[in-house]
Amino acid sequence: MFAICFIEPRIAGNTGSAIRLAAATGAHLHVVAPLFDFEDSKLRRAGLDYHDLAVVTVHDDLDAAMQALEPARVFAFTTQATRLYTEVEYAEGDVLMFGPEPTGLSEEHLSHPAVTDQLRLPMQSGRRSMNLANCASVAVYEAWRQHDFGGTR
Amino acid sequence: MFAICFIEPRIAGNTGSAIRLAAATGAHLHVVAPLFDFEDSKLRRAGLDYHDLAVVTVHDDLDAAMQALEPARVFAFTTQATRLYTEVEYAEGDVLMFGPEPTGLSEEHLSHPAVTDQLRLPMQSGRRSMNLANCASVAVYEAWRQHDFGGTR
Repeated sequence: MFAICFIEPRIAGNTGSAIRLAAATGAHLHVVAPLFDFEDSKLRRAGLDYHDLAVVTVHDDLDAAMQALEPARVFAFTTQATRLYTEVEYAEGDVLMFGPEPTGLSEEHLSHPAVTDQLRLPMQSGRRSMNLANCASVAVYEAWRQHDFGGTR
Repeated sequence: MFAICFIEPRIAGNTGSAIRLAAATGAHLHVVAPLFDFEDSKLRRAGLDYHDLAVVTVHDDLDAAMQALEPARVFAFTTQATRLYTEVEYAEGDVLMFGPEPTGLSEEHLSHPAVTDQLRLPMQSGRRSMNLANCASVAVYEAWRQHDFGGTR
């Protein structure tokens, strides 16, 4: 399946719902520190249990995450990209990478050597960005759709 | 474009991020009362402004919403459906309907005469349902994708 990578997410609720997204789709969620507002107690209050927490791995930094994953392709999602998320043929092992809620991925993250392409979700002009977990959901389901929702459905 | 219909949503954060989804995609969000935890002040704290609030309409009940919308088709999203959300050719004016967070759409809602079909998002077996706004995001972007993201992009 696919990997979702959240860089320095700020809001526990978004990471919580992304964990449920990962569990629902068979993806794995990789979360890159430093983390704010990310505590087991809060995630448990969000209704997550140990089955959910089995689909998430926390990494010290982006280098550590990429060394663990050794991905062939990393798609960085940013509103600055010209290519749409639907213009890619997704493949097993692809990493879908998203930045912190208020700012999105920094230049430093976007220029990381592991990043192979930048993608964006289309939006009406002049609108602010969508919620992090909503964006990840759209991207992961598009990737999975292209694979005819392989695995249990 | 398409209409999103949230029946009795319980969590302001979900409605808030669905408002941003609607604004981003050019959809309109219809929210059906009774509403819990839905206050302007909370939505504003979630970073929504009057531009965002222009894409949401609150209705007293489902009948009132359907009388206002007069939709040709209403797709009720429920984990009980057999048909996948990708098996539909979406058309202008379609309504994508979602139930309350903890329970989903009731039998009463599913059997409403305006409902023309039931759809579901595929999920790994045994997983609990995904976040309401995440589900709506996946569905709306699939409908919009089929229309080549018509409108400003």
